[in-house]
Amino acid sequence: MNELLIVGSVALDSIETPAGRVEAVLGGAATYGAVAASLFCPVHLVGVVGEDFPAQHLEFLGSRGIDLAGLQIIAGGDTFRWKGDYNEDLNQAVTHETHLGVFEHFDPQLPAHYREADFVFLANINPSLQLATLDQVSSPKLVVCDTMNLWINIARAQVFEVFRRVDIAVLNDGEARMLTECESTVSAGHELLQLGPRAVIIKKGEHGALMFSEEGIFSAPSYPLEEVVDPTGAGDSFAGSFIGFLAATGDVSYANLKRAVVYGGSVASVTVQDFSLDSLKTLEEGEVERRFGVVREMATF
Amino acid sequence: MNELLIVGSVALDSIETPAGRVEAVLGGAATYGAVAASLFCPVHLVGVVGEDFPAQHLEFLGSRGIDLAGLQIIAGGDTFRWKGDYNEDLNQAVTHETHLGVFEHFDPQLPAHYREADFVFLANINPSLQLATLDQVSSPKLVVCDTMNLWINIARAQVFEVFRRVDIAVLNDGEARMLTECESTVSAGHELLQLGPRAVIIKKGEHGALMFSEEGIFSAPSYPLEEVVDPTGAGDSFAGSFIGFLAATGDVSYANLKRAVVYGGSVASVTVQDFSLDSLKTLEEGEVERRFGVVREMATF
Repeated sequence: MNELLIVGSVALDSIETPAGRVEAVLGGAATYGAVAASLFCPVHLVGVVGEDFPAQHLEFLGSRGIDLAGLQIIAGGDTFRWKGDYNEDLNQAVTHETHLGVFEHFDPQLPAHYREADFVFLANINPSLQLATLDQVSSPKLVVCDTMNLWINIARAQVFEVFRRVDIAVLNDGEARMLTECESTVSAGHELLQLGPRAVIIKKGEHGALMFSEEGIFSAPSYPLEEVVDPTGAGDSFAGSFIGFLAATGDVSYANLKRAVVYGGSVASVTVQDFSLDSLKTLEEGEVERRFGVVREMATF
Repeated sequence: MNELLIVGSVALDSIETPAGRVEAVLGGAATYGAVAASLFCPVHLVGVVGEDFPAQHLEFLGSRGIDLAGLQIIAGGDTFRWKGDYNEDLNQAVTHETHLGVFEHFDPQLPAHYREADFVFLANINPSLQLATLDQVSSPKLVVCDTMNLWINIARAQVFEVFRRVDIAVLNDGEARMLTECESTVSAGHELLQLGPRAVIIKKGEHGALMFSEEGIFSAPSYPLEEVVDPTGAGDSFAGSFIGFLAATGDVSYANLKRAVVYGGSVASVTVQDFSLDSLKTLEEGEVERRFGVVREMATF
């Protein structure tokens, strides 16, 4: 089976949502992405944490078959911490505090056995680190990137550079409009496609996702949820399971990209039903397939 | 072919959007609904206008084969006028002025040949008038209703009464959450279904529509537009073409309801590409079918 390399943030999050609050729980784009992808394929993680990173989280990641050889643990360093809330709008986090900690001087170094990875997911992280990672991979079959509003604001040129070098870019609708300065999500999708990726996937939360490509626009509904407990990591687990499914099947045809989008949404819908990665931890065998089937039924006419 | 009865507002609208502004143009829920439905089937219109209503609009409606025997023209009366803008948010009109005019004392009286209509669309209007119309129809095969936030605010019990008496209720996502006091659109859909209709359709603008029924949830994407000129009448033309297609085919199976939702969205996507009913007036033969095909392609995986 193809192996998947994921680089991105590993974090400790403090989050408040209308459903409750948690302190210093396991989070980070690469964490969500890796655990979601591990439902489908072997994962090699690249990231950094401090000495304060709880051993139980390392054990959990290892128990999912995630290779941690590329996860640097910095003696005396502090793990990246993020504090935010979704009290006003479940689709948009308000950041209260960001402590970069060990991310401030992070220089991703890929272990030798990572460099041959066929599938690469550049999860949300400073775009210069996404590029530095990509420079160390020999000849990937498929590279997917994600980003966030912070990098669009402070490192727009580098975000564009990443988009030019990947096969598939994933971002949410607000980010797509911000990056392109388009008012319409459809225009933003078409414009981002012009940068060169084979496909651009725009996530719209409860409204599903749109994939733009030369083959046309694909629209996937979201799995219908009555309640969202914590939206953190929805996009990361969407992208992680999207590329994880592609790596597992080794099929990057347009038809399979569409299926991968629906798998991505199915896993993301699990993620948001509890804080941190709690609902991914207790996910029952067959539940992702069941949700995939529900979404297929919803979309068929 | 089945005939369709439509009751609702006929109006003169003054509208400002980021794309421009127009004064006292043809509008009203029944107008949009009737013209959209007339793409598919014969329509009998029930409504009221004042002496100030331009003859050219009557000629236009007549030219679409819309039966105006039930359109009262009140001597000395003023046509209902609405003034609003969508400058902040294309999904939500801000009302500046409403002149009820002849609507203040409107008492819908159905001509004899209207009472046997098999298909009935209770377009947006005071729910007491929707009920008064329904009381005069003998044995319709299918009744569809729409409503708006105004009636939910000032006549909630009557809106519920309408929902209990129709086969299919159509409303937008904000209205659905307002009416049910649910935070989630999915919960709102399920709750409204408990009132008794066979299906509840929640329109989400650019994000498509969800249809809730005993058969499950159906999700239809919207036809992808790069620009919306004027969203006025999108929902009315959605519902009008939805029921118009059902009346034309005489098929109210679940499979055909799903197709009707996609036809509704296809026609609505035409409506919003110009002010008033201008783009419906110039709609080319085959364009609705083409958009239906695009949406089917977008949804297929």
